[in-house]
Amino acid sequence: MYKLYYYPNNASLAPHLLLKHMGLDYELLLVDKKSNSQKSPEYLKLNPAGRIPTLVDGETVIFESPAICIHLCEQHPEHSLIPPIGDKLRPLFFQWLTYLNNTLQAELMVRYYPHRHTNDESTIPNVIAAQDERIADALAIINDQLAHNKYLIGDELTACDFFLFMLAEWSLPIEKSPLHFEHLAAYLKRLSQHPTVLAVNDIEKIDLTPFQ
Amino acid sequence: MYKLYYYPNNASLAPHLLLKHMGLDYELLLVDKKSNSQKSPEYLKLNPAGRIPTLVDGETVIFESPAICIHLCEQHPEHSLIPPIGDKLRPLFFQWLTYLNNTLQAELMVRYYPHRHTNDESTIPNVIAAQDERIADALAIINDQLAHNKYLIGDELTACDFFLFMLAEWSLPIEKSPLHFEHLAAYLKRLSQHPTVLAVNDIEKIDLTPFQ
Repeated sequence: MYKLYYYPNNASLAPHLLLKHMGLDYELLLVDKKSNSQKSPEYLKLNPAGRIPTLVDGETVIFESPAICIHLCEQHPEHSLIPPIGDKLRPLFFQWLTYLNNTLQAELMVRYYPHRHTNDESTIPNVIAAQDERIADALAIINDQLAHNKYLIGDELTACDFFLFMLAEWSLPIEKSPLHFEHLAAYLKRLSQHPTVLAVNDIEKIDLTPFQ
Repeated sequence: MYKLYYYPNNASLAPHLLLKHMGLDYELLLVDKKSNSQKSPEYLKLNPAGRIPTLVDGETVIFESPAICIHLCEQHPEHSLIPPIGDKLRPLFFQWLTYLNNTLQAELMVRYYPHRHTNDESTIPNVIAAQDERIADALAIINDQLAHNKYLIGDELTACDFFLFMLAEWSLPIEKSPLHFEHLAAYLKRLSQHPTVLAVNDIEKIDLTPFQ
């Protein structure tokens, strides 16, 4: 039994999609962001960064969403959500998972929490404007990759696609949203109808209609 | 023969440390940042994000420094720079590599390139001030982890340590630098005397004296 500390439509969404997709036995534990529970002394013992998600797998406690995704994929290789060691697609899996995490996700975090990145509230609109352009640049690179690939790293679904779908959900309010990019929009529309995506978004009460 | 597109003391430093540490046959190809060569049409064909580094391994081209590190470690498991699948330390390896990359490195990038994150130059000092605090927060979390571990994920050196050393070099000019943190400072002093670190910093002409 896995335990996933989560909050709806947070960075826990990608691990949640994987747990559901693989049909694993899991329990969801809500970290109430509204009361800042991710900074409580109890939670900080599990996750010193005070962020969501954390996965508890027996004696092993893991934070950082990509690390949790890799762990689940490697523990259950029969689901083929990560190319095995020696497969030529494996480095591309890590390349794109890293890019999604350190670029698209990182830029979105600055966009949605701009007050953390300036010590003067009056400058927040300046940060947001810059971020919207940077997010569009990252989405354009991902769109190019999808121009000649059915899924992010090739012909088969991997954990990278669930990770990207999560970030696409976060990106919807951006002026130039993922739906403005031809190949990315078609891919997201297709993924939004995937049974795993439908089931998890239903559990987390996330509206998928913008993708349809 | 590996080919590493690099620039001194850039994100290519961690892969460079791994290539040297493992005694692999490699060629360094300078990407001249001063003339913005990372945005040249030729380089963008290899790396659409237009960043340094890129690794060429035969037919395989990989960008993103953590992805290159994972590839090198997995291709040469005899060097034990990544715990094998099934090892209880493996998820912690990915956890800390991810944290270093999406938090410490991402915050440093905003700190050193603040003009990219605001559309008004006059607000740059506000961004820098906020970033200095965020970098200190990340260093404090890493320092806590090193209070009871010889290396970042336990008793043995892994690629995470080379990655952290690279980011520590970048962090030296920050007001509250890594050397202000007790456990982290002792660890960095020790690593700065490692033969691999000495050799690669000599090649890239990086001054290690602040650590000694």
